[in-house]
Amino acid sequence: MNLLIEAMLDPIHLISEYARFPSVSTDPQFADGMRGARNYMVDKLKSLGFAVELVDTPRHPIILAERGGAHEDWPHIVIYGHYDVQPADPVEKWTSPPFAPEVRNGRLYGRGTADNKGPQGVQLAALARLLEKQPDLPLRITWLIEGEEEMGSPSFPEFLRQYRERLARADLILLSDTGSPNPEQVTITTALRGLIGFEVELTGPKVDLHSGVHGGAILNPIEALAKLCALLHTEDGRVNVPGFYDNVVEPQAWEREELKKLPTSEDAYQAFLGVKAFRSPRGYSPLEAVRFAPTLEFNGIGGGYQGAGSKTVIPSRAFVKITCRLVADQQPQEIYDLIVKTLQERCPVGVTELKFSQPEGGAAYLVVPPGRPNTPADQPATLAKAFKVADQAIAEAFGRAPLYLREGGSIPIIGQMKAVTGLDSLMIGLFMPEDNLHAPDESFHLGMLEKGVAAYERIFAELAHP
Amino acid sequence: MNLLIEAMLDPIHLISEYARFPSVSTDPQFADGMRGARNYMVDKLKSLGFAVELVDTPRHPIILAERGGAHEDWPHIVIYGHYDVQPADPVEKWTSPPFAPEVRNGRLYGRGTADNKGPQGVQLAALARLLEKQPDLPLRITWLIEGEEEMGSPSFPEFLRQYRERLARADLILLSDTGSPNPEQVTITTALRGLIGFEVELTGPKVDLHSGVHGGAILNPIEALAKLCALLHTEDGRVNVPGFYDNVVEPQAWEREELKKLPTSEDAYQAFLGVKAFRSPRGYSPLEAVRFAPTLEFNGIGGGYQGAGSKTVIPSRAFVKITCRLVADQQPQEIYDLIVKTLQERCPVGVTELKFSQPEGGAAYLVVPPGRPNTPADQPATLAKAFKVADQAIAEAFGRAPLYLREGGSIPIIGQMKAVTGLDSLMIGLFMPEDNLHAPDESFHLGMLEKGVAAYERIFAELAHP
Repeated sequence: MNLLIEAMLDPIHLISEYARFPSVSTDPQFADGMRGARNYMVDKLKSLGFAVELVDTPRHPIILAERGGAHEDWPHIVIYGHYDVQPADPVEKWTSPPFAPEVRNGRLYGRGTADNKGPQGVQLAALARLLEKQPDLPLRITWLIEGEEEMGSPSFPEFLRQYRERLARADLILLSDTGSPNPEQVTITTALRGLIGFEVELTGPKVDLHSGVHGGAILNPIEALAKLCALLHTEDGRVNVPGFYDNVVEPQAWEREELKKLPTSEDAYQAFLGVKAFRSPRGYSPLEAVRFAPTLEFNGIGGGYQGAGSKTVIPSRAFVKITCRLVADQQPQEIYDLIVKTLQERCPVGVTELKFSQPEGGAAYLVVPPGRPNTPADQPATLAKAFKVADQAIAEAFGRAPLYLREGGSIPIIGQMKAVTGLDSLMIGLFMPEDNLHAPDESFHLGMLEKGVAAYERIFAELAHP
Repeated sequence: MNLLIEAMLDPIHLISEYARFPSVSTDPQFADGMRGARNYMVDKLKSLGFAVELVDTPRHPIILAERGGAHEDWPHIVIYGHYDVQPADPVEKWTSPPFAPEVRNGRLYGRGTADNKGPQGVQLAALARLLEKQPDLPLRITWLIEGEEEMGSPSFPEFLRQYRERLARADLILLSDTGSPNPEQVTITTALRGLIGFEVELTGPKVDLHSGVHGGAILNPIEALAKLCALLHTEDGRVNVPGFYDNVVEPQAWEREELKKLPTSEDAYQAFLGVKAFRSPRGYSPLEAVRFAPTLEFNGIGGGYQGAGSKTVIPSRAFVKITCRLVADQQPQEIYDLIVKTLQERCPVGVTELKFSQPEGGAAYLVVPPGRPNTPADQPATLAKAFKVADQAIAEAFGRAPLYLREGGSIPIIGQMKAVTGLDSLMIGLFMPEDNLHAPDESFHLGMLEKGVAAYERIFAELAHP
C-alpha cells in the first residue's frame, strides 16, 4: 500500500492525472473521459483502503466509498465531490490544452483543476499523508463523488432517498466546492441561496395582428407583461409580492461585521459590474444584498418581432423567465405560489391567458458556526467540533482565520442533503474568482493547494481524535 | 386600336393575364416576373393611347404614362397603382398555383388579384370601355405604377421630388389600394394613419451576470425596461407621453355616425380578435380607436435568455420595438422627440445607457369630402367634384352609397404625395377582408370587379365633362 500512497503524496501530480480525463458529463462523446476519471478515483480510494461501490444512475454512476465502516463508534464524515467537469469550449481560447494540465505562474491550468478535481485532490492527498503516518486513523469516511454535478445533479435526489439511512448515520458533510476571495483569505460558506425558476407566458389576441388595422382596440400583450413585471419590485428595490419576505432569516449583526472584513470595496465592485449605480433592496448594502437578501430576477423576456428593422405587429404572446434566489427559511414552492397568485390577481382584464411553467429549484441552506448568538442550542457536538477544528487548521496553514460568509449562489444538493439526511455541511472554499471556473484557462492556485493539503490533514487528524 | 382595346374589355381576362407574372419585388430571382408585369401594363397603356416612359430607380422602374398631355385645360387626374406583389410563400397552402389565376366560387384566385393588379385592371377596363365609345375623352390622365410598393416604396420619395412639378399640375390622385367591408358596401377612405417606428435599447451591467453571485446589487435591465414600457400607457388606455395628443384632429360627429353604418358589430370584432375584452383609449370605442385614435404599440421585446429551460443570468441589455400610428395632424418627428424625451426623463438611475434607433415612418393623411361641417373652405372644385361623382357612380353601380371612413393602416406614399405635390387622394376600396391579401389563396371578388368597372367608367366619364 505504501507505494500506492506515495503516488498520492504529490497533490500536483495527483490532480494533473485526474484532470487529464475529459470527463464532460453533458456530452455523450466524452463517455471514455467519464469512465477514466471515475476509475482513477476508484483506484485511488481503494489504495487508501476504502471499500468502493459504483451506484448506477440513468446517466453517470456515483462513486460511494467507505472506510471504517465496521466502527460505529468512530466519528463519521461524508465527503462530497464530483468527477465531472464543464465542457472546455471554446477550446481555442485556452493558452494550453484544457485536458493536458500544465503548471505556469504558480497555477495548475486545466479544465476541472479548480472545479472540482483540484479540491478533491487536496483532500485525497491530505488523507494519504495522514494515513501514511496513522494507517489506523479512527475516522469513518463515506466518500461520495457524483458524475452529474455540471448537469444539475439530476440523479442525486433519488440516490439520497435510496441511501438515506446509511448517510444519515454520519455526523456531517465536508465539501470543497465553494470559493474564497484570495489565496490568503479562506472563506467558510455558511449559507447558499435557494432557487425557484419558472416562465410566465401571457396571451392576448389569438394570432399576431396588424398594428395598423387593429392597433387601439386591444391591450398589447407586451404592455400587459411590462405592467406585470414593473409591479414586481417596489421603488426601493424590494420584491413586491405580499408574503415574499415573511420567512426570511435576517442576517445577524456578526454576519454583517464578518462581511465587512471581505477585501472588496463597493467602488471596486461597481467598476467590476460596469454600472453607474447600485440598486439593492432597502435594508441591505449592495454587498450584503447578494449574500443576505432574496431576489426576483428577470433572466429573459421575449415577444413579437425581434429581427432587424421593424414589423408592425401586435404580438399574440409574450413571455418572461423569472428566477428567485431564496434565503433561509423561504420555501421554493410557497414562494412560487405567492408569485403566481400575485400575478393572477394583478393580471389586466384584457389578457386572454396567463400561463406558468412548472417551477424548478431547491431550498436555501444555512448553517451557523458554534459560539454565535444564533447558534442552535442543540447543535451536534461533532459539527461544532468540525467548525472549530477547521478554524484552527485554516488559521495555522494560511496564517489568517477563515471568514464565515453566506454565499449568493446556489448548490441545491446541500439543501437536499440537509433535508433528506439531516446533515449539515462544512464548506471550505479553495477556489477563487481568478480561477476561471466554467471558462477558458481554468486553473488552481498552487499556494491554495499546498496550504489546503496542510489544513485538511490537520482537520482529518483532529476529527479522528476526540 | 379597336382590336387591342377589345382585349381589355374583359376585365377577368385582363387581370388574369397580368397576375400570371410573378412580380415579387423583394426577391431578385423574380426579375423576369417583374419585367413581364411591367411590360404588360406598358403595352396596355400604349394601346389606350398613353405616352409611356419608364423611370429608372435603384431597384424597379416606375411606369409613368400620360394621355392628353397637350391639353392643359382638361381635368387632370393621377392614377396610382403598383405592379409588384407579395411573395406567394407558403406556396403549399394555396388551393391553386399562386401565379396561375383561376376562377372559383365567384372569385378570381391568384397572388396580386386583389393587391393591387385586380383594382388596376378594373380601372383599365373601365377606361378602355369608355375610350371605345369616346376615343377623344377630354380627360388628362397621368398613370403611375410603381414596382416597389411591397418593399415600402423606397424609391418613391426621390421620384416625387424629381417629377414634382409635372404631378403638381394635376387635380387629384385616384387610387384603389384600400378596402371595403363587403361586396355590397364600398368604402371611400378619408384618412390613413401615419407611422413612426424605432427601437429602444437599454443597457445595465457591461456583461451578462450570474444571477446568484450578483443578484440583488443592481437594477435588472429587463425590470428597468418593463418599468419604462409600463408607464407609456395610462390605466384608461391613453398614451402617457406629455404632448402626444396636442395636435390630434378629433373625429367629427359625422365621422362617428358614418362608422356606425359599418356592418360590423363589436361582438363579432371581439370574436375575430380572440380577446376576452377590448382595451381602447378613453373617449374612443374599440371600432373608433383603430380608425380615429393614435397609438403606441410594442411590436417586439427581447432580452436575456429566451431558449428552453432556464439560464440564471442578469442580462446586460434588453430592447423593445415601438411603432406609433399617428393621426392628422401629429408630426412623426415631433412625436418621436416627445417619446425619447419622456423615456429619458423617466429612465431609472441604475440604467447605464438608453439608446434610440433612427426613427422611420411617415405622416398621417386626412381628406374631408365636400359638404361636411369640416370641409375646408378652399377645397379645389375638381376634388369636390370627384368625390360627388364617385359617390353617385358607386351608389348607382352598387345600389348603396359609399361609406366615408378613416382607415387604421398606413400608406405612407399618400401623405408623401400630399406633402410634395399638394394633391389629395380619392381612395375607393375594392378589396375586402376575405380577399387574403399577403396570404395564401388571395382572391378578388367578381361582383366587386364587375360593379367596380361600371363605377369607374362613370367616374372617368363624369370627370371629363364639366
